[in-house]
Amino acid sequence: MARPLRLGIAGLGTVGASLARLIVDRTDIYAKRSGRAVEIAAVSARDRSKDRGVDISGFAWFDDPVELAAKADIDVFVELVGGSEGAAPDAVKAALNRGLPVVTANKALLAHHGVSLAKLAQRKNTTILFEAAVAGGIPIIKTLREALRGNAVSRVYGILNGTCNYMLTRMEKEGIAFEDCLKDAQRLGYAEADPTFDIGGFDAAHKLAILTSLAFGCEIDLESVFIEGISAVSNDDIAAAAELGYRIKLLAVAQRTESGIEQRVHPAMIPIASALAQIDGVTNAVAVDSDLLGSILLAGPGAGGKATASAVLSDILDLAAGTSIPTLGVAPASLQPYKRARMRAHEGGYYIRLTVFDRVGAFASIARRMAESAISLDSIVQRRRTGQGDGETTPVVLITHETTEAAVRKALEAVSRDGHLAGEPRMIRIETLD
Amino acid sequence: MARPLRLGIAGLGTVGASLARLIVDRTDIYAKRSGRAVEIAAVSARDRSKDRGVDISGFAWFDDPVELAAKADIDVFVELVGGSEGAAPDAVKAALNRGLPVVTANKALLAHHGVSLAKLAQRKNTTILFEAAVAGGIPIIKTLREALRGNAVSRVYGILNGTCNYMLTRMEKEGIAFEDCLKDAQRLGYAEADPTFDIGGFDAAHKLAILTSLAFGCEIDLESVFIEGISAVSNDDIAAAAELGYRIKLLAVAQRTESGIEQRVHPAMIPIASALAQIDGVTNAVAVDSDLLGSILLAGPGAGGKATASAVLSDILDLAAGTSIPTLGVAPASLQPYKRARMRAHEGGYYIRLTVFDRVGAFASIARRMAESAISLDSIVQRRRTGQGDGETTPVVLITHETTEAAVRKALEAVSRDGHLAGEPRMIRIETLD
Repeated sequence: MARPLRLGIAGLGTVGASLARLIVDRTDIYAKRSGRAVEIAAVSARDRSKDRGVDISGFAWFDDPVELAAKADIDVFVELVGGSEGAAPDAVKAALNRGLPVVTANKALLAHHGVSLAKLAQRKNTTILFEAAVAGGIPIIKTLREALRGNAVSRVYGILNGTCNYMLTRMEKEGIAFEDCLKDAQRLGYAEADPTFDIGGFDAAHKLAILTSLAFGCEIDLESVFIEGISAVSNDDIAAAAELGYRIKLLAVAQRTESGIEQRVHPAMIPIASALAQIDGVTNAVAVDSDLLGSILLAGPGAGGKATASAVLSDILDLAAGTSIPTLGVAPASLQPYKRARMRAHEGGYYIRLTVFDRVGAFASIARRMAESAISLDSIVQRRRTGQGDGETTPVVLITHETTEAAVRKALEAVSRDGHLAGEPRMIRIETLD
Repeated sequence: MARPLRLGIAGLGTVGASLARLIVDRTDIYAKRSGRAVEIAAVSARDRSKDRGVDISGFAWFDDPVELAAKADIDVFVELVGGSEGAAPDAVKAALNRGLPVVTANKALLAHHGVSLAKLAQRKNTTILFEAAVAGGIPIIKTLREALRGNAVSRVYGILNGTCNYMLTRMEKEGIAFEDCLKDAQRLGYAEADPTFDIGGFDAAHKLAILTSLAFGCEIDLESVFIEGISAVSNDDIAAAAELGYRIKLLAVAQRTESGIEQRVHPAMIPIASALAQIDGVTNAVAVDSDLLGSILLAGPGAGGKATASAVLSDILDLAAGTSIPTLGVAPASLQPYKRARMRAHEGGYYIRLTVFDRVGAFASIARRMAESAISLDSIVQRRRTGQGDGETTPVVLITHETTEAAVRKALEAVSRDGHLAGEPRMIRIETLD
């Protein structure tokens, strides 16, 4: 057996501490499984004295992760510092510059600097592995980068943010309002004090931008992701969806179209009898449509110290076993430029919920506006809800056949201008599965 | 770039022909993705002249797959001949003896001879890759062998036979009887003329035996798999399951218990709101419970020429990229002997359906027999079905709390002996997910 693979781990938070404990406790079994022993040679963290359930006194200590990456006597640099600017990219670059492979869980780093870091890695004849950066413990990076290599992917999509999925699940199952649900999620640690990054869809967008590159062999383009969060999803929408045979999930979707590649994060209605619709709570799921496989689905824990450590370990043990694969699946020079498909050209079905003043001709006017935009309707539900308001308005739910985003926006602007609506129209995209 | 990786493909049926077309059509993209060109150097099949949609005249031809494996100028031997005896194992051994890596889709070969072939591969410093042997296009071999390397697995289970799942889906959705459903499946090509291998559970058992070895690091032991097929599943069972919040699937389960590792294939009731319960038709799914990840689920096509070719390609392109991993994940010497957990010791909930003669005291007698076996009941449904029989019997459905297989068998034998039953009692195991 070769001499042990020596790790330098920067960042000993929940994931890093879990990782360190596992590597110490399972030395023998991991050596058996990857054909080479793995050991920790150096660590870096904010606080040297904190109890992490593992004795770190035998590892070289560095106050500065960049210094660890640049100088420690290691074979692999494990970046668990986080953040797209500052110490994380500096340390990763320092390690790559020495020709060391890097393992990271840092989605922001990849989403912002993935291509330039992949180029640096390539120049130095090394690589960056980042299974933990997307969907936690689900092996979606390995699946896209290795298992699907024979396929042409047409769409990759999924539930990539546990906070949003937890909230939507509770809103549906318990009928709790968005704001109350958010407070609960914050109290339980599923949402940050400032929840914008999660519920605004930005976290999912970062992960999607990475998946897009792997799925389509193109450059990462975070700026082009269309993002709509879940804060406008109401209990009324969720109830209407259920009646129509749908469930609402925050989906992240990258899809090849005639005009380019769509990247979009938004609440979406999916068939309630689909496997994806059963993905509850903080669980994540990713589906891939491709020409040879049709559709495959992977589901599992999207976050958490142990699940993330499992993904980091998968990368480390791959390196110990001698695996070598370019950062983004192909050599950076082979990556295509990302060609954006505009959201206005998006094609699909739409759920539209209108609150309409009870007036003669209102509904005819709405129907005319839809027809003017060449939108045909699959179903129309107009019903007075008992116990709602003063009876002067009626909720109307429309489900369209396949149409374009531009047509729907145009129709809704016209309907709004006509003055028949109390409040803004609501629109939720319907995602066709399989 | 290194010189091309030269393949010898034995077997040009649906999968082999699909594979050959893909390798010819996508030479450039595959070279980009694996860093090394892949080309076909030699082929073997029954009929040289058959049109397979690909020109094979440029490849060296062998009438005999064993001769191809032994003598062709190749770097990798791809075995798509099939069968656990005869040409397939002979050719695989011939290739391994030359130190050539083997890629195969042959579950029977692995289930029967996996350990001895792994030992031969190890001695010759090469390996066998077999992603296509289990669950078609789902990357479960890669996931178990690589992505979960950091984990201790406690259970691997899933829907591994498309024929059975297709039949159970149609029986439920359309209320078709088993025999009619089987005829349809045969007509549509989803079931063989002799369907025993599929509906008897043997196909799933072969796949399970392979997964067990990878999940638990033990030797393959096909003979120890407990097997019960789907032919006794009735529409009444399916309807009763639905009423109780369950769906019936043929599950293959390998589970670590206190007394060893259970391997079992049988119809099972799973919660109707689970993702696994939504896996319809010929789709396969595999779930893995492990200590770091909790539960992950992979679903996708379990068979078909293109999906299987995708899995074979994944292995070939891994080899082109330089991956090397022992056949069964660890060196054969590190494999533990398989320690069987007896089915009688199996613990779980049970669905029991009895057809009881309408007599005073019959139900009390049944309840007493359950109590004597220390079985506590979660729910009891006794109901006269309209339009069934002459009113002399009543169907009774019992759901037990967790108990043992031995207790249930003992209780049912006693109930049968008491003479209250018209016909044999039915029993279906309930599988707890997550």
